[in-house]
Parts: sequence; C-alpha cells; structure tokens
Amino acid sequence: MDEIIVKYLEKPDLKDPLFIEGLPGVGNVGKLAAEHLIDEIEATLFAEIYSIYLPPQVLVDEDGIARLVNNLMYYKKGVGDKERDIIILTGDYQGMTPQGQYILTDRLLTIAKEMNVGMIFSLGGYGQGQMVDKPRVLGAVTGPELVEEAEERGIIFDQDHPASGIVGASGLLLGLGKSVYDMDGICLMGETSGYFVDPTAAREVLEVLTSYIGISEISYEELDEKAAEVEALASKVMELEMSNLGKDTKREDLSYIG
Amino acid sequence: MDEIIVKYLEKPDLKDPLFIEGLPGVGNVGKLAAEHLIDEIEATLFAEIYSIYLPPQVLVDEDGIARLVNNLMYYKKGVGDKERDIIILTGDYQGMTPQGQYILTDRLLTIAKEMNVGMIFSLGGYGQGQMVDKPRVLGAVTGPELVEEAEERGIIFDQDHPASGIVGASGLLLGLGKSVYDMDGICLMGETSGYFVDPTAAREVLEVLTSYIGISEISYEELDEKAAEVEALASKVMELEMSNLGKDTKREDLSYIG
Amino acid sequence: MDEIIVKYLEKPDLKDPLFIEGLPGVGNVGKLAAEHLIDEIEATLFAEIYSIYLPPQVLVDEDGIARLVNNLMYYKKGVGDKERDIIILTGDYQGMTPQGQYILTDRLLTIAKEMNVGMIFSLGGYGQGQMVDKPRVLGAVTGPELVEEAEERGIIFDQDHPASGIVGASGLLLGLGKSVYDMDGICLMGETSGYFVDPTAAREVLEVLTSYIGISEISYEELDEKAAEVEALASKVMELEMSNLGKDTKREDLSYIG
Amino acid sequence: MDEIIVKYLEKPDLKDPLFIEGLPGVGNVGKLAAEHLIDEIEATLFAEIYSIYLPPQVLVDEDGIARLVNNLMYYKKGVGDKERDIIILTGDYQGMTPQGQYILTDRLLTIAKEMNVGMIFSLGGYGQGQMVDKPRVLGAVTGPELVEEAEERGIIFDQDHPASGIVGASGLLLGLGKSVYDMDGICLMGETSGYFVDPTAAREVLEVLTSYIGISEISYEELDEKAAEVEALASKVMELEMSNLGKDTKREDLSYIG
Repeated sequence: MDEIIVKYLEKPDLKDPLFIEGLPGVGNVGKLAAEHLIDEIEATLFAEIYSIYLPPQVLVDEDGIARLVNNLMYYKKGVGDKERDIIILTGDYQGMTPQGQYILTDRLLTIAKEMNVGMIFSLGGYGQGQMVDKPRVLGAVTGPELVEEAEERGIIFDQDHPASGIVGASGLLLGLGKSVYDMDGICLMGETSGYFVDPTAAREVLEVLTSYIGISEISYEELDEKAAEVEALASKVMELEMSNLGKDTKREDLSYIG
Repeated sequence: MDEIIVKYLEKPDLKDPLFIEGLPGVGNVGKLAAEHLIDEIEATLFAEIYSIYLPPQVLVDEDGIARLVNNLMYYKKGVGDKERDIIILTGDYQGMTPQGQYILTDRLLTIAKEMNVGMIFSLGGYGQGQMVDKPRVLGAVTGPELVEEAEERGIIFDQDHPASGIVGASGLLLGLGKSVYDMDGICLMGETSGYFVDPTAAREVLEVLTSYIGISEISYEELDEKAAEVEALASKVMELEMSNLGKDTKREDLSYIG
Repeated sequence: MDEIIVKYLEKPDLKDPLFIEGLPGVGNVGKLAAEHLIDEIEATLFAEIYSIYLPPQVLVDEDGIARLVNNLMYYKKGVGDKERDIIILTGDYQGMTPQGQYILTDRLLTIAKEMNVGMIFSLGGYGQGQMVDKPRVLGAVTGPELVEEAEERGIIFDQDHPASGIVGASGLLLGLGKSVYDMDGICLMGETSGYFVDPTAAREVLEVLTSYIGISEISYEELDEKAAEVEALASKVMELEMSNLGKDTKREDLSYIG
Repeated sequence: MDEIIVKYLEKPDLKDPLFIEGLPGVGNVGKLAAEHLIDEIEATLFAEIYSIYLPPQVLVDEDGIARLVNNLMYYKKGVGDKERDIIILTGDYQGMTPQGQYILTDRLLTIAKEMNVGMIFSLGGYGQGQMVDKPRVLGAVTGPELVEEAEERGIIFDQDHPASGIVGASGLLLGLGKSVYDMDGICLMGETSGYFVDPTAAREVLEVLTSYIGISEISYEELDEKAAEVEALASKVMELEMSNLGKDTKREDLSYIG
C-alpha cells in the first residue's frame, strides 16, 4: 500500500482557503476546538486520510461498528464576516514516529498547497503542569510581520520562555509550511494543566481564532457543558487525592491546597 | 529482498471464498481456533509468507529441523452445508512494528482481493483481566447491515464498552479491508483472562464461526483436551500463588479468596 | 547512500564454496571461531560490507586510527583433505534492528548465491545461564537428510528442548537460505554460560566444523590461551561476588555455593 | 517529501575547502567550538538542511518566531595564514536514529565531495565522567600518515584506551568519509565531564584546530565568558548536592569530598 492513502469524498473548489489544524495533543485542546468549530459552522467532510504511520487499530463504536483510525479534512465556504473559505483538519491520532510525523505533515501540506492555502492556523495546548484558572492563548508565528495583528487579537508572546519548542503536527505544519512550502502560519496554544482534557482552554483558543477569521455568531454551549463535566471529575479526583494524602500527612501540610 | 515474499505452493481457483484469520494474539484464541479448523476440515496449505516485519528468527523442531518464521494460507473448497470455499490464515507471529502490521495486512488483503474475497472473519481473544467461566463471543463489524445476523448467531455487541479499539491484524483486516478494499468483515473475540492460552475461548469462537458458515459436523475433542491441560496448569499456578500469599498474610486476609 | 555497500577488494573465482558465518553473538562463540579459522588457514579478505543497519560508529585502534564498523568476507581455496573452497564471514556487529537483520542477511545470501554457495555453516553460542564444564555442540539443520552426518560428527540434537528458536544472523542465514535461496544449512551452537566471551566453546565448535569440512592440521593454541585468560578473570569475578555475599549473608546460607 | 531537503542560499565556489563539523554532542563541545569559529571569522550561511531524521519540532525564539530544526552549512574563503577555504557545519540536532545518522552523514559527504573537500575535521567532547581541570584534546585519524602532524599540534593519542569507539556524526563523517568517499579526517575531542555544556573544552578544541588550519588572530572572549557562567552554575549545583548529602550522612562520610 502507499504509506498514506487520501480518499477524497469530494474535491472542493476553494478560494485562498485558511487551513486550521486540530489534532490530538496536550489536553486535547486543538482537537476539541477543531471539532467544535466543525460542528458549529457545519463544515463538510471531503477527505479521509489513512496511513501506516497511524496506529494499526480500528475503533469500535457503541453499535459494534469498527472503523480504521484516520485523519479527516473538512471545508466550509464563505465563513464569517470576511466570507473566507476554510479547511479544518482533525483526526484520531498524530503520526506515531518522528519520521511518520514529518511524512504525514508533508502530505497534508502538499494537499493544502494544491488547494492554494497561504495561511495555516495550528491549534493546541500549552501544558503548564498545574491547574490554570484563566487560560491565556500563547502564540508562535512564522514571521515578525504576523506578530502585531496576533497581539491585537489577544495572543500572548511570552518573552519569559524564549527558544522553547513545539513538537508534533502543530509545530511541523508551521516549520515545514514556511521552510518548504512558503506558507505563513500561526500556532495558538491554550494554557492547560496537561492532566485533563480541557474544553475551557479549547474555548479560549476558539475565541481568538474566530476573532481572527471574522466569525462572530458561534455558540460555546457544548464546550461549556463538557468543561463543567471535566471540572466535576477533576474536583472528585482531587478530593480523593487529598483524602489519601490525609492518611499520611499532618493537617498543616495540607494548608497550601486550600 | 522484497519486504514480503509470498511463496505459492499452488494457486487455487476459488469461488467467492470467505477469508478467516487466526494469528497469535490475546490468549492465542484466534490461532488455536484457526489451526483447529484447518485440522478438522483438512484444509490445504497453498502459500507461505515471509517478511522482514516478522522476527528475524528460525524455529527448531524436536528433530533439529529449523524453519523460518512465517504466516501460512490454507484453502478448502465446498465446506459445510452452504458448500462455501474458504481461505484460512494463521502463522507464527504478527508483524513486529506498527508499520509492519499495516504493510503485512495490506499484502494479505491484496491476495484476498485477487481471489475475490468479499467477506473476512478475524478471530481473536478479548482480555478481561480475570478468569472467565463461560466465555462469550464479542463482535465488531464493518457495517450496520451485518449486526442482525451476527446477533442471531450468538455474537454479543457490548454496549457498555463502546468506542474501544481492536489492535493488530484482526482490527486492521477489518479496517483496511473496508476502507481500502471495500470488503465486509466481522471480528469474533472470545472472552479470556489474558493470562493463559485459552482453548475454551477458541472453541466458543469456533462454534459461532462454524454456525455462521454452515459447518455442523466438526469435532472439538482436541481443543477440549488442550483446555483440560491448561485448566490443570492454571489451577496449579493459582494454588502456588495462594500458598505463597499464605506466608506473608494473616488468615483473615485470605477470606476474600475462598 | 545504498542501505548496504559491498566494497570488493577482489572477486575470487571459487568452486562450490562452503559459506561459514561467525558474527558476534552469545559468548561471542561464533566470532571467535570464525576469526581463529581465518588466522589458522590464512584466509584472504575480499569484501568489506558497510550498512546503515550497523551502528553509526567508528572503532579507534591503539594508534588512533578510526575505521567504520563493518562485516568482512574472507576466502580460501582448496582447504583440507577434501580441498574445498570456503568463504568466511565475520564482523564487528550484526544488524541493529529486526528489519536490518533480514536485509543484511538477504544481501549476504545474494552474494553467496552468486558465488555458487550450496551449503552454509552458521556458528554461535547456546546460552545455558550457568557455567558449562564441557561444552557440547548443539545443532540445527535445514532438512532431515543432514541429521545423520551431523550426528556422526558429534553434533547434538537435543530432543528435550524442541521448537526453540535461533535469533539473528545464524538463524536467518539458515531460514532465508533454505526458504528463498534453496541452500542447505547447519547451525553449530557451542554451549556457554552466556556471561563471558567463551573461547572454550569456540574451540569445540571449531573442532566439529573442521572435522566436517576435512581440516585436520589446525592449532588451537591461541584460543586455549584466551580461554585461560577468561577463566582467570571469571574466577576473580566469582571470588569477588562470594566475598560481597559474605557481608550480607550468614555462613549457612552460602553452603549451596561450596 | 524527500528524506533530506537541502535549501541552498548560495553555491559558493571554493578551492579544496576543509570541512569542519560541530554538531551537538557530549558537553556540546563541538557545537560551541563551531559556532564560535563561525562568529569570529564571520562565515557566511549557504545551506539549510531539513530532514525527517531530525526531531519533528520547531524552535520558538523570544519574539515568538518559530523555525524548523535544521543543520546549517557556512563557508569562508581565504582563512588564516594559509588562506584556506573552509566549510563549517553546525545545527540544532544530530539524526535521531542510527539509520538516520548514516543517511544524513552520507548526504553531507555527498555535498562535501561536490565541493571538492579532501579533509574533514570533526569536533566533539570526550566524556570522562568526572570534572576535568585542564582538558586535553584527544584525537582519532583516518590513516597513520596523519598522526605525526596531529601530535605536533598537541593532539593526544591515548594508548591507554585503544579500540574505543566514536558514535554519531563525528565518527561517521570520518568512517564513511574514508571508506566510501576517500577523504582524510581528524576527530578532535575535548575532554569534558559530560555533566555540563563545556565552553572550556570547546576553547581547547578550537585552539588546536586553528593552529592546524593556520588561524592566529581569533578571540576567545565570548567562550571564556560562557565558561565562567557555567563554572558558577556548576559550583552552585555541587554545593547544593553537598548540603543535601549532609542531611542523610554523618560528617565522617563526607571526608572524601573535601
């Protein structure tokens, strides 16, 4: 078989589309954001991507129906105030090996180039290793000319953590996109603990993204419901941990938690 | 060398054959079932498959004869009440890497397609992590139109564990088979502890399979003998574990075992 | 670069040569035996083999000269009573990955086939996990017609350990050689602890091999010297271990060692 | 995509250039030395190298600008007393897998061959596992004819540690360079603890290298500043370790440290 199989359901004819990526990653922030956007703007699935670099696995749904793990591409024409065409990528997994990551990302960029994509938004989470009350959206861009507008949209460029890295599809789409395909790119990373899936961070990322591309009418109801569920679960987990801690710890040692 | 070498001993001319896979896996359920079926219906070996994705190893038998590890394909014409032609795949190992799994499975599907296979049965075990008294046969299918007949044959679609995954050849044959080769598929998974090879689960899987394909005259004597041996061994292991436990534990702590 | 580079210093014209492999492995038995044979019969180096499947490393000798790790092929014409032509393979390493093992071995077999090799001897160690006083030479062959002569030469076919496996080049040369290149093969495995390099096991293997191919005049002086060195070292290590044990253990617990 | 993408900014026309490699490695000695040399002689970047064998990652600078990890090639004409043309290679990472190491190094050598390189200097660190007061520069060469001049330049050929190996790009450039591309090579390894980046070792390596190629006017100010920073940091770490030790250890146990 080919290393990557792209099965087109349709070949949409798009005008200077924006390319938005939300694959699984830290806190699943990017995937949650991309899937929510797909639902809200009712984007259309047009390509299924299978690859030997994804896990050798089928997923089985509640009706017993198995399907091969994949990445999926959606499109929507004339979105928002600026009537932009957009492409959204999401999926079950990222590539499993470093080489697989490169080869898959490069293929996505080839498809994007064929469809005249000039600008990429990659969405993800930024793991802080501790609970985050009000997640900021951190950014990275492919060139200095993109910084000003990004800051106006509320994206933070954190000068205290320079020269750090973005690993995986979100990073590679920007890096390969710029170096090899001459595309501009912005990575939006919602701050998250990294311990739970984080619909709150996904909402923050989506708010910045939609402001950027000029969508104003989007509802966040579903993301907010998911966030409430996760919060309830997280509280339960922390209670449990505290009661376990209690067994081995004196009271005063716990004060920092309250 | 080619990554995969298929050595044909014969190229059988089959009519709409069913493809049955039983490679090593959880509890070795699929392999035990496939090998038992091969023996009982006296299927004929027609292809040996060697590959760089299998372990770099020969197996040596009791006479000192070494042979390279492989996968094997058998066929039998006019089996059972419905006089169906069938192909059975078994082997020493599955592919060793995720990519190897994809590439090997894809090759098997190419061969199956050439022989006009339209329907795949993949056999395996479903590890429950605890001893299983009366193993059920859980199922997954490639489309909703296959569920009804499957349920009539006694296959369980477990709605309590939705969206789980099937990893390896049994999953990939269904997933790639459907997505790339447009074949239907059913995966039959016998419940098993996962701690021992499990001829009992293999028998349950085989009973469902033979009902499906219309074989009624099959004997399970050999599988039952193997099951008795394994049970004896398992009992011995558990006794040992209990007596070891006894050394470090007070009597009352053991009550939950009795 | 090509995955494997074969640099011929010479292309010898040989008549039905035997192919003898002694790459590093358990107790380094095969490599020690092959290198000793090369020295004793003064075989000629004719090919250097470099590959991306060997470690990315140079070895530096006592004069500071670095050379890339490789496998080497030697030949000698008209050896022993039967005046057989022979090829000997040794080297710094075996292939580092399972696929690399297959691809390297296949290439060696292609070279062997071009030189009309019909018979392969692969040399190795058989790790027993405990010190071995008088190492036997265990065997595996590619067909039942080879067993009788092998047993006459003193090779043991251990019926108590059937269906075990030989991993790596020694196994693959036999398995691929038979299945794909239709060559006969014998694997000679000297029993060894597996804890030390084992020149004694190498000598046993070499005695069986030379008897087989009709060499009678060979000296074992160098191997015996190395064996004495290793034995001295091993004794020292065991003494140390015993004196360390002494610190934490009561005297009666040590009785099983004496 | 191609496994390796070489993006030329310029194709300089050089006369018998020397090739100097300083990629990341033990103590980052080679990279520090190469980067310092690039700065001091104001070498010109002429090629960016991207590859699927490098990590799938972008690096983000303090302004939020992301760039794909790469290797970089610089050149400078007419350097030093001998007016030699030189090429300098540095980068963010070495290849991530053994095969990747081979494939990347081979490509670098292909480029070097096209530019008529006859001599390679690979720079690195030699980890001693303990603090090194006055680092020596150990050497390895591709042929005995190179030893004399190397020793005159102060390179040590350590006869007490023969037959050791050099792993990675520094080793492969010499080994593949000699065996496949017929280039001469010298590896300069500055002694270092291996626990910290080591600008002091980098300076020693650079002093030997510049003596070799006839550069006399170079300043070491920046390296010396970095060295002072690292030393301050290292002292702090060691103090901390000692004070931690103090908590669990009796005073007399610490005497060996003083």
